Amino acid sequence: MRRLLATLIASLAWINSASAADSLPSWNEGASKKAIISFVEKVTKEGTPDFVPVPERIAVFDNDGCLWAEQPMYFQAFFVFDRIKALAPQHPEWMEKEPFASVLKGDMKAALAGGEHALLEMVMATHARLTTEEFEKAVTDWITTAKHPTTDKLYTEMVYQPMLELLAYLRANGFKTFIVSGGGIEFMRPWVEKAYCIPPEQVIGSSGGLKYELRDGKPVLIKLPEIAHNDDKDGKPVGIQRHIGRRPIFAAGNSDGDLQMLQWTAANTRPSFCLYIHHTDAEREWAYDRVSHIGKLDKGLDEAKAKSWTVTSMKDDWKTIFPPDKK
Amino acid sequence: MRRLLATLIASLAWINSASAADSLPSWNEGASKKAIISFVEKVTKEGTPDFVPVPERIAVFDNDGCLWAEQPMYFQAFFVFDRIKALAPQHPEWMEKEPFASVLKGDMKAALAGGEHALLEMVMATHARLTTEEFEKAVTDWITTAKHPTTDKLYTEMVYQPMLELLAYLRANGFKTFIVSGGGIEFMRPWVEKAYCIPPEQVIGSSGGLKYELRDGKPVLIKLPEIAHNDDKDGKPVGIQRHIGRRPIFAAGNSDGDLQMLQWTAANTRPSFCLYIHHTDAEREWAYDRVSHIGKLDKGLDEAKAKSWTVTSMKDDWKTIFPPDKK
Repeated sequence: MRRLLATLIASLAWINSASAADSLPSWNEGASKKAIISFVEKVTKEGTPDFVPVPERIAVFDNDGCLWAEQPMYFQAFFVFDRIKALAPQHPEWMEKEPFASVLKGDMKAALAGGEHALLEMVMATHARLTTEEFEKAVTDWITTAKHPTTDKLYTEMVYQPMLELLAYLRANGFKTFIVSGGGIEFMRPWVEKAYCIPPEQVIGSSGGLKYELRDGKPVLIKLPEIAHNDDKDGKPVGIQRHIGRRPIFAAGNSDGDLQMLQWTAANTRPSFCLYIHHTDAEREWAYDRVSHIGKLDKGLDEAKAKSWTVTSMKDDWKTIFPPDKK
Repeated sequence: MRRLLATLIASLAWINSASAADSLPSWNEGASKKAIISFVEKVTKEGTPDFVPVPERIAVFDNDGCLWAEQPMYFQAFFVFDRIKALAPQHPEWMEKEPFASVLKGDMKAALAGGEHALLEMVMATHARLTTEEFEKAVTDWITTAKHPTTDKLYTEMVYQPMLELLAYLRANGFKTFIVSGGGIEFMRPWVEKAYCIPPEQVIGSSGGLKYELRDGKPVLIKLPEIAHNDDKDGKPVGIQRHIGRRPIFAAGNSDGDLQMLQWTAANTRPSFCLYIHHTDAEREWAYDRVSHIGKLDKGLDEAKAKSWTVTSMKDDWKTIFPPDKK
């Protein structure tokens, strides 16, 4: 009880400071920052037609390329590759079988040549048949040790500092923040609470089937090699409806996979805000927009511009990209 | 911002009073009440091995027969019957086709003779092809006007007062309360926030497929006549994992459909609490345990007793069943 009181008192203090000082210090003064602050001030101003009650302040964020980086490929793909290598001794047949053979030879490009289908095959082969607790442990072990191939950072050190500030700013203003990602829901949950202060119940992602079983009287959930929900494109509004049951008033994305989520948010009868992160910084991050290893990106950007959503240029709008190194 | 502050300050006041006064006034002094309070005090006491941090204080509640009544049949079935009657003019074929024909003749028993399968067929026929917003309106219109056939109360007046107090008591102690019901997720969401103070994003239930579509440029989600998730029995731990991603420490149920959710909770490595509501009050509610119109109920009750979960007798443990009439 005392701890709960302390937490609440801490939130009160944080709210007061949030309204007073600059809550978005890593954002340059410019159109994006101005638009965000102006929207938040508008919907939190009581007694005005634009006021949105706290329970309806739902904010949704894509993850890959929006909260953390996604180059040279989705970070979950590195996890999958590492699992393939670890599991290879139990699967001698993988030496001859694509896309596994390419992974074991270290040729990631060839491994991903089969596109989404090949990636999915590898996800199924390496994620399924574990219990949810075994899988959680595998993710936790990996995320706390594996390093990015070019930056040599932990993957969780490649989250975007300005987006961390934006998440905190929204929460300090009564928003509930959700992740809505095409990535695996069980892959994200073990680390997003620490990385983004987003609890597991506010994570929406792609998911596989689960089977409840009693093993020696102990209940477990087994991951099945089948897709239950593909949380990408059309699947994002579906995932939002299924998990939240309420239309967001704030959405942030960076690719065609986020377009439907942004449309769904923009059509809210309440005031709404759509943020499109534009990867323009070849020096500090990566520059890519219309095409990437992941596929085309043109529809989302075109519609964002056509509908005057807030397009944030990482190069121009962000003072820093990643959090400062911890010494 | 001022409103948010006011809400937080109000919660602080409420927490102080919750620890001081009796938070469960409709519960008779007895083993159930004592066990609940003792559990909550135990897990909220900092610096002890049983202490559970706030984010892990997840509580899950069945709905039908646990938070509100379920006799003479699931209340959602009455909604389905009323929709069949309303839609009948557009479906002349229903006059000849079971189970619809029986509903239209007013023979509900015959309509339900086909069991779960028949009910599901009616759910599909009456829920599907609407947009989520049209369906929400249909539920809201019905729940605010339809009356229970024998009590003549609104269905939302047939929630259990002692359970409302329990939900509030848990929340005041840092628990996040979720509904985990076999009922339709979209059927519950429009009214549970008002009835139980549970927001839509904390409702888990059975769900159908959804399809995203642009209608004249306006995005909608269409309900499809297919089951995406059956949130009953084995489906409850699956629904909990998918939505919450964390194992509950508190679960309440009243039937075989809740058994797996209770097992899943009981096997938490943290201290956990399982509550089994026993319908023993023929006078003020209904008395039924091992068999009901809904099917067998013996496994849940037997396991609750065998495992010494807290079995609450509505007749003996509850001072009142329903909230007092509003005059």
